[in-house]
Amino acid sequence: MIIDSHEHLMLPIEMQIEKLNQAGVDKAILFSTVPHPERAKNLAELRGEMNILYKVLAGANNKEANRERMIKNNNELAMQMKKYPERFFGFGAVPLGMSEPETSLWIEENILSNEFKGIGEFTPGSDEQIRQLEVIFQAVNNFSNLPIWVHTFNPVTISGIHILMELCAKYPLVPVIFGHMGGSNWIDVIDFVKSHKYVYLDLSAAFASIATRIAISELPERCLYSSDAPYGEPYLYRQLIEFVSPSQEVANMVLGNNILQLLSE
Amino acid sequence: MIIDSHEHLMLPIEMQIEKLNQAGVDKAILFSTVPHPERAKNLAELRGEMNILYKVLAGANNKEANRERMIKNNNELAMQMKKYPERFFGFGAVPLGMSEPETSLWIEENILSNEFKGIGEFTPGSDEQIRQLEVIFQAVNNFSNLPIWVHTFNPVTISGIHILMELCAKYPLVPVIFGHMGGSNWIDVIDFVKSHKYVYLDLSAAFASIATRIAISELPERCLYSSDAPYGEPYLYRQLIEFVSPSQEVANMVLGNNILQLLSE
Repeated sequence: MIIDSHEHLMLPIEMQIEKLNQAGVDKAILFSTVPHPERAKNLAELRGEMNILYKVLAGANNKEANRERMIKNNNELAMQMKKYPERFFGFGAVPLGMSEPETSLWIEENILSNEFKGIGEFTPGSDEQIRQLEVIFQAVNNFSNLPIWVHTFNPVTISGIHILMELCAKYPLVPVIFGHMGGSNWIDVIDFVKSHKYVYLDLSAAFASIATRIAISELPERCLYSSDAPYGEPYLYRQLIEFVSPSQEVANMVLGNNILQLLSE
Repeated sequence: MIIDSHEHLMLPIEMQIEKLNQAGVDKAILFSTVPHPERAKNLAELRGEMNILYKVLAGANNKEANRERMIKNNNELAMQMKKYPERFFGFGAVPLGMSEPETSLWIEENILSNEFKGIGEFTPGSDEQIRQLEVIFQAVNNFSNLPIWVHTFNPVTISGIHILMELCAKYPLVPVIFGHMGGSNWIDVIDFVKSHKYVYLDLSAAFASIATRIAISELPERCLYSSDAPYGEPYLYRQLIEFVSPSQEVANMVLGNNILQLLSE
């Protein structure tokens, strides 16, 4: 089974399915989203969509508004997914800055009740926000097998990545997916993952084919194919995996078997 | 004619030609290189190769040693290219920090004499190094049509990109290629290039297919296909261009016609 392990909800969702079909992908893991760049027809419209995201990342909204937005986005995601349950899994959003009991309650009410398989995407705008992830690590310990998906590309720096690595070392049984494989810091991230069994590499936003090739050859059982659609194309990212994998067997692991195994643990 | 407009010299050069053939690419523009990641068989060897580059970027070598290295690398590039003249053009390296007359002399002795078509890649390690590019802009005015190729991805920040934009505005007739399209700052870079006629977008190191799609749709005559091999694969980057281009005619412009036109101006 071919699974695109990281896509953001696109509207209408039939566009998402069309892209999966075009790429020969069976299922995708959907994440909620603030902007909808797939709606932009040109640069000006795209800038408008992205400015919505940048405002949220910069903390322009207050805590209460952010939580309401997340509940709304999680519910929208769950609703869209239910139209095509055979094509999608979902990961749901959890706010930072709550206590552990509050976070656990949120997970029950907004993640488990929506039948999401994991939580994220966390896009930390500062090192402080990465430190705040510790409560998430503590809370997921109360549940069985909820992988945490963290964006580790720009604007996350190597200092933020080190904080995340420390959390992984402190909570070694929590499954964590390093989104976009650390960006420019991919060599350090691959090195780290080699000695941390429950840490996974998301291969989207790949800017150097050589990085994808090395990751797959060093950690074939820990690499996860994804496109980050609508930012990346499921078809092109599948081509990338097939092109750089040392064998069809390894490509199959990366293209679906690894994430399936992780979600069923 | 399909031209990969940015590749680094790989050794043996027959490996480079094999990759061109595999991608159906007629010619490549070669740039000299410090590391040879294509030789690395695993993560440890790759780290070794890249550390050589990081030392140079961090200024570990003195000025004299750097210049000698550049002369050696330029000559090696010219020598390798001459084995297969029908498959390659070349761009040559020019050091920063020299006076304008010294820079012009260097261009005569190391660029024109080697029949290189342009200069670069400049990989500025700081805003100060981007400011030093002004001498290069002044010197190329003494020659006809020598495009300048500047790396604008990480570690170059938006502040460095703004300095480069100011230089482009101050010397509007100097052709400049923004390598990797500004990285995460691609929206700002596309916007800038729309109003600056001699500025071009290099499409390698693309981490978001949507960025490549928007660049090509907004500036079809200013986008240049490249792979940045050995970091990227010529085959995959060609697939990307063909996938996101609105028509085969536009794809052909991006895949070769635009750079051919630029080099023959």
